[in-house]
Amino acid sequence: MRKTLIGVMGPGEAATALEIENARELGRLIASVGWVLLTGGRNVGVMQAANVGAKELDGLTIGILPSAREVDTSPAVDIVIYTGMGSARNNINVLSSEVVIVCGMSSGTASEAALALRADKPVILLTDNQSARDFFPSLAAERLHVVDSPKQAIELTKRLIAGVGVRPS
Amino acid sequence: MRKTLIGVMGPGEAATALEIENARELGRLIASVGWVLLTGGRNVGVMQAANVGAKELDGLTIGILPSAREVDTSPAVDIVIYTGMGSARNNINVLSSEVVIVCGMSSGTASEAALALRADKPVILLTDNQSARDFFPSLAAERLHVVDSPKQAIELTKRLIAGVGVRPS
Amino acid sequence: MRKTLIGVMGPGEAATALEIENARELGRLIASVGWVLLTGGRNVGVMQAANVGAKELDGLTIGILPSAREVDTSPAVDIVIYTGMGSARNNINVLSSEVVIVCGMSSGTASEAALALRADKPVILLTDNQSARDFFPSLAAERLHVVDSPKQAIELTKRLIAGVGVRPS
Amino acid sequence: MRKTLIGVMGPGEAATALEIENARELGRLIASVGWVLLTGGRNVGVMQAANVGAKELDGLTIGILPSAREVDTSPAVDIVIYTGMGSARNNINVLSSEVVIVCGMSSGTASEAALALRADKPVILLTDNQSARDFFPSLAAERLHVVDSPKQAIELTKRLIAGVGVRPS
Repeated sequence: MRKTLIGVMGPGEAATALEIENARELGRLIASVGWVLLTGGRNVGVMQAANVGAKELDGLTIGILPSAREVDTSPAVDIVIYTGMGSARNNINVLSSEVVIVCGMSSGTASEAALALRADKPVILLTDNQSARDFFPSLAAERLHVVDSPKQAIELTKRLIAGVGVRPS
Repeated sequence: MRKTLIGVMGPGEAATALEIENARELGRLIASVGWVLLTGGRNVGVMQAANVGAKELDGLTIGILPSAREVDTSPAVDIVIYTGMGSARNNINVLSSEVVIVCGMSSGTASEAALALRADKPVILLTDNQSARDFFPSLAAERLHVVDSPKQAIELTKRLIAGVGVRPS
Repeated sequence: MRKTLIGVMGPGEAATALEIENARELGRLIASVGWVLLTGGRNVGVMQAANVGAKELDGLTIGILPSAREVDTSPAVDIVIYTGMGSARNNINVLSSEVVIVCGMSSGTASEAALALRADKPVILLTDNQSARDFFPSLAAERLHVVDSPKQAIELTKRLIAGVGVRPS
Repeated sequence: MRKTLIGVMGPGEAATALEIENARELGRLIASVGWVLLTGGRNVGVMQAANVGAKELDGLTIGILPSAREVDTSPAVDIVIYTGMGSARNNINVLSSEVVIVCGMSSGTASEAALALRADKPVILLTDNQSARDFFPSLAAERLHVVDSPKQAIELTKRLIAGVGVRPS
């Protein structure tokens, strides 16, 4: 049966403590709903934390790696896809996610948010980077939703998947 | 917990009745062992048949699609990865499979067999195309194994994963 | 002899009159220096205008297309690379450019600016989108340079290529 | 003005003396006609030899590299495209070539021949690997042409580009 994949994208090595805490909570909440967590799959930052959170509640986790083989793969990823494409794999991450939750901000993360909007995906932005909260809505106001907590992100994801009329905040 | 992904690659629209029968049996056998089936994910030929076979035994199936969105995705795929990369996704298929089972032959299939050998993956060739059975061992005799049935393919896959000394037939 | 490739990235269908004018001037200036112009190669917006500008001064132009074959290729591109990868080709654009000049803003353009920073490329931002001018320096202040005209962009590109100490404005 | 790109694909480190000699002659002949030579761009084997040959006659050379940055780039390549995609870049090589000349054989080379046929490109096969000469025509007899010398390859390329009725030998 077709599973629902929800992407969580965020910084790796440069993730802050708050971003990591939010990512872990997002992973937990995604697993609790029964969705599959999709991340970039590395063993650092937001990727690692989200996968650890999802596994705490026995969720299924999939990682789309930039490398061509096991290098710094998160041990909390169940299904590992090796792309060997570096950051070009960011586009696969967003194409394969029904909703893209952006948790934190970095150059790689910004590229995923932008690629998701380019691909007409709904994007939920959870970050305290104020310039990011100002900038991304300027690209596609109708698909970019700014939230303030993991819980808000998941409630909104549910409504987006249900197709309930949702207006960006 | 990290899952073992086994790739089954083969023709789409041009698959023969024998290739489809073999693919379905491969899917069943892969599911029966508890491995995850990885294919190109389209709803035709070897891809479709292998996924249907795996689902008959409640296996988990993952498809790496050439398209950027739902077009001709197999309904028997549980986890869909949209690459939007056309045939360049063939390289992801082989990088992500611990063992690549080639079931039948076509130009796309040949590219997957060759890319798998290029990536130092073990390849198991199940086809009655005699020129393919002659050609591929000339590329990398030590990693290319020719078999005559799905059952042989799966027995060999078990030994390859176990790291038991295996000599190509 | 190895040629110097300078990327100009910007909106397609949604480009404004100012962005198109700037792109054409960038193309002219790049050709006048003897550099090769690299763009996304489509026949619209900033891509088209930059290529037309470069050809006015007999520059060499290369386009990295998202499509797998001739669809909406700019007739002003001399050398066409078909990737068949959609927006994942954006990463190739920035990896292949010594300096990335971002002319205008859109979701695709933002992804290229972000991927360029992710790849440690120098990025020159020419846009009147104030939130973009605020946001991108927050990602990598040391490699992101905001300018106000095509001429400034080219002068800065010369200094960046010469390796002259350059501080972002 | 749109340039005609002709691809020459062949082994890297494992190239034989004959394959290298043929590649150099192909490069010379391609340059003499005024076509642009497209290769995988590395500084070894068929890629290196073809580029050196083309530069002997002042041809223009373009290389589509597997790496994300300068690593083992051929110094005889004028225009370097860095893909950072490993062997997935093989698909770009064939999509961007009007005709694909396969010079020699290896696993990477076989993948390019197969991907070219998959993409409906005309492929000219120049190799003394008899099993390859038997196998590839079985995939797409109408587009796969076996030749015995660089000169034959170029004569056939001219006819293919001119659209003159050409029957595979």
